[in-house]
Amino acid sequence: MSTPEYLTGKKEALGEFIAKYDVFLFDCDGVLWSGDHLFPGVPETLDLLRSQKKRIVFVTNNSTKSRQDYRKKLESMGIPATVEEVFGSSYSASIYISRILPQSHPEVKKRNKVFVVGEAGIETELDSEGIPHIGGTDPKYRREVTPEDYKLLAKGDPSVLDPDVGVVLFGLDFHFNYLKMCYAYHYIQRGAVFLATNMDSTLPSAGALFPGAGSISAPLVKMLGGKEPMSFGKPNQAMMDAIEGKFQFDRAKACMVGDRANTDIKFGLEGKLGGTLAVLTGVSTKEEFLEGDTRPAFYVDKLSDLLEGA
Amino acid sequence: MSTPEYLTGKKEALGEFIAKYDVFLFDCDGVLWSGDHLFPGVPETLDLLRSQKKRIVFVTNNSTKSRQDYRKKLESMGIPATVEEVFGSSYSASIYISRILPQSHPEVKKRNKVFVVGEAGIETELDSEGIPHIGGTDPKYRREVTPEDYKLLAKGDPSVLDPDVGVVLFGLDFHFNYLKMCYAYHYIQRGAVFLATNMDSTLPSAGALFPGAGSISAPLVKMLGGKEPMSFGKPNQAMMDAIEGKFQFDRAKACMVGDRANTDIKFGLEGKLGGTLAVLTGVSTKEEFLEGDTRPAFYVDKLSDLLEGA
Repeated sequence: MSTPEYLTGKKEALGEFIAKYDVFLFDCDGVLWSGDHLFPGVPETLDLLRSQKKRIVFVTNNSTKSRQDYRKKLESMGIPATVEEVFGSSYSASIYISRILPQSHPEVKKRNKVFVVGEAGIETELDSEGIPHIGGTDPKYRREVTPEDYKLLAKGDPSVLDPDVGVVLFGLDFHFNYLKMCYAYHYIQRGAVFLATNMDSTLPSAGALFPGAGSISAPLVKMLGGKEPMSFGKPNQAMMDAIEGKFQFDRAKACMVGDRANTDIKFGLEGKLGGTLAVLTGVSTKEEFLEGDTRPAFYVDKLSDLLEGA
Repeated sequence: MSTPEYLTGKKEALGEFIAKYDVFLFDCDGVLWSGDHLFPGVPETLDLLRSQKKRIVFVTNNSTKSRQDYRKKLESMGIPATVEEVFGSSYSASIYISRILPQSHPEVKKRNKVFVVGEAGIETELDSEGIPHIGGTDPKYRREVTPEDYKLLAKGDPSVLDPDVGVVLFGLDFHFNYLKMCYAYHYIQRGAVFLATNMDSTLPSAGALFPGAGSISAPLVKMLGGKEPMSFGKPNQAMMDAIEGKFQFDRAKACMVGDRANTDIKFGLEGKLGGTLAVLTGVSTKEEFLEGDTRPAFYVDKLSDLLEGA
């Protein structure tokens, strides 16, 4: 396996690196910012790429925000962006549910309501595709389980289990609880398709790690004897196909930039992009990138190190 | 692999079966009752065994109840029992934390406080061994996560992360939430030992399945890259050793009775008990017992079928 090339401080190599690609796909958390803390020099770095007519796409596994929310977040941090430049895992999942699932699972045509375990971003993207949904941010599901719940769920009573639900979609849910686990399990046991926006085990914030969407669906995986959900975030290639479908770019002239070996870098490598660039401001360590199974072509200490390649 | 012997309706074989053993270890949920529904004939069956001077031990992985709670539950259902006859996973875990862990993990001698993710049963058993604990049923942890939480947890602030915590103990928690996942993860990342009362993925209730303790700890296992907690419920032999230590019985003359192949029956087989009896009133199906990897020596449709062996 080849050793990733370290570009920080190497002006000429940085210039060549930038010149080589037309499209830069950016992971956001851990690359552009951590939580609400924007890394210094990031807006300037993106300005530099834009000034050289590079196409920029923000690819995020964060399911709690819709594309609109993400555009607003980017803008509030001083990074101008359009909704079309944002690809999120909730959007990716919604596209799949509305366009692909009815083909592969004909029963979903009749029962196309989604039980959501997640935040508003998922609901917004499902709405944008016209998919009916329940659960999600509905306060009805933010409470303790009662003896009555057990009885009604056990007998599949339609007053609690909506017969139109054919899909259970998990994302990151800050309001995850025992009751939602019960509902999700009983819908899946009654034939609903088990999906997850993404399988990131952790979420970087404030310079540390917190539970990610993959940890929210983990109890269901355990209850189902190890059965994993179909998922749509990086490194799943459903998202790469959607991005390519939209922008019609040449994969050989595209570079994925990210902080996680097993999601971002894997996403770029499996997508057969021309390049992959790792930054050391997020989850994976230098050792993981240099000695692990999934190695980027290039790495820098931080994204703004690219400025020296101007 | 030998085929389990079906005893239901076979008077003579049932009589021989009962005569063969001095001690009967009973799983409770799925064998004696399901949720709050006692199976018919159970008290009479236990009376029959007691009348023949059999020792009875109720072995439960349910971590939400202390031994006292369990004795009360048995009694309220018409099954007289003593606290000593009850062995629960919370008791088993508490014994381990107070007596074994300080030997194998010398650092726990100094930081012996337990962060509990679970219900009152765990707290009662920790109290009975004099082990200090936080978390658990404290309403302070039953709330949404705030931006301030991220900051304080990220920097390991002692105002939120108690420096005396050296153990994180997971059990079944009906009040599980995102905040508790965050706390548990940050304590473990700071060196706390990761323990679970038991790893049952599901809990039978009202004739259906609901999330079990193993599903509550699943997010942490995912966040820790697959690292499983040390656990104390069936089929873990720490519990069998504790039971034998207390009653000093001959394992060859003991029989484990249960409804789950991969916990109860495995517990009896790995503990090299003289016998294992499966009932079909709980989680595992007849097919699992007859064709699976973990097969009981005997099986009956329901526990009260033993009455015919009187």
